Amino acid sequence: MRIAVLGTGSVGTALAERLEGLGHQVTIGTRDVAATLERTEPGAMGGAPFAAWAAEHPAVLVASFAEAVGQAEVVINATSGAVTLDAIRAAGAEGLEGKVLVDISNPLDFSAGFPPSLFISNTDSLGERIQAEFPGTKVVKTLNTLTAALMVHPQALADGVHSVFVSGNDADAKATVTQLLREFGHTDIIDLGDITTARGTEMFLPLWLRLMGVVGTPTFNIKVVR
Amino acid sequence: MRIAVLGTGSVGTALAERLEGLGHQVTIGTRDVAATLERTEPGAMGGAPFAAWAAEHPAVLVASFAEAVGQAEVVINATSGAVTLDAIRAAGAEGLEGKVLVDISNPLDFSAGFPPSLFISNTDSLGERIQAEFPGTKVVKTLNTLTAALMVHPQALADGVHSVFVSGNDADAKATVTQLLREFGHTDIIDLGDITTARGTEMFLPLWLRLMGVVGTPTFNIKVVR
Repeated sequence: MRIAVLGTGSVGTALAERLEGLGHQVTIGTRDVAATLERTEPGAMGGAPFAAWAAEHPAVLVASFAEAVGQAEVVINATSGAVTLDAIRAAGAEGLEGKVLVDISNPLDFSAGFPPSLFISNTDSLGERIQAEFPGTKVVKTLNTLTAALMVHPQALADGVHSVFVSGNDADAKATVTQLLREFGHTDIIDLGDITTARGTEMFLPLWLRLMGVVGTPTFNIKVVR
Repeated sequence: MRIAVLGTGSVGTALAERLEGLGHQVTIGTRDVAATLERTEPGAMGGAPFAAWAAEHPAVLVASFAEAVGQAEVVINATSGAVTLDAIRAAGAEGLEGKVLVDISNPLDFSAGFPPSLFISNTDSLGERIQAEFPGTKVVKTLNTLTAALMVHPQALADGVHSVFVSGNDADAKATVTQLLREFGHTDIIDLGDITTARGTEMFLPLWLRLMGVVGTPTFNIKVVR
């Protein structure tokens, strides 16, 4: 499939690399291609500067948000929650019309330090905000409950025996996303229901962040035991 | 131990029965003992009227909130979140002074129907509110992430291979509560940190409630896979 990944951070690059390895045609979308490629500082998570990553992954194209989305069949939002709506607006409703938008973002508010609170929660979610603003796009919330490495290589932990969730209003879009999740190696994919169920997975983040502190690594997940 | 259980609903009676069976001296606290024993309608969860339950459990005493707490070494709040602060106020700060208060409540707001939202969340939690209002009491949040039957009989699901959390400011209080959890059969007890970490477990409820719908029963839990 032709897939656009919005975002050049640890989540975006992990997804792009994995999808390309699985044979998909991947374009990473960014606000300003030249500025992104000129960055020399390490990523927020300590990774290589994006240009070095891009040089090592020549099959992954880099384009503006709008160009990346325009060519894509499926769009993945891997930007940080604080800039997600702006990034999707920059991609443009026209290019997104009728497409599946996989939303991985979390509405984390770091303005008061760590651990962050949520800037949307309880009676709304970032997934719902995106769906409300882009009604012609099929938003599927998923993968926001685990660290980037496990999103794309779930088998790296406990032979993949742990859970991932999908939320969205469109059954066909969820089926498309579920197929991608299976390609990554996910085996316990739980359809929570419509996009309002994204409240549940986004509100899981405060527990996830505390667990990361206790476990001492982001490389953990939850298994729904039933 | 002498344990007071505040609340006569499904959580309170499950805890009282289990603790009594384990050899503890249990008193259930309620706002108005006579009114509670006169109730003839089934419980909110469809259980027997409280008087019938009490008649079948003669070793469990029934007393006012204040009387129950006055005689107890450990107090367990098993009231619904909406009435929790009023119930603890009725028990009284004097009787609670210096004691461990196990808080199992969730701040569920059913005013807009099901699924409920939370009436406290994100930058605060019900556990923190209790601790702030009763600074001489050692509040430990736990067990609020699973259904009553699994709180007290975790081995009934997957041989007990799933997780439970504790949050609180006092290490000795958490050790006391952890010992009770072990008596119930819990084996994966995760200390999340101080009482502010109760935000994480309370904010897990929206995901829990959706999972209950998908799984089709409240008899499930999560395992932290690491």
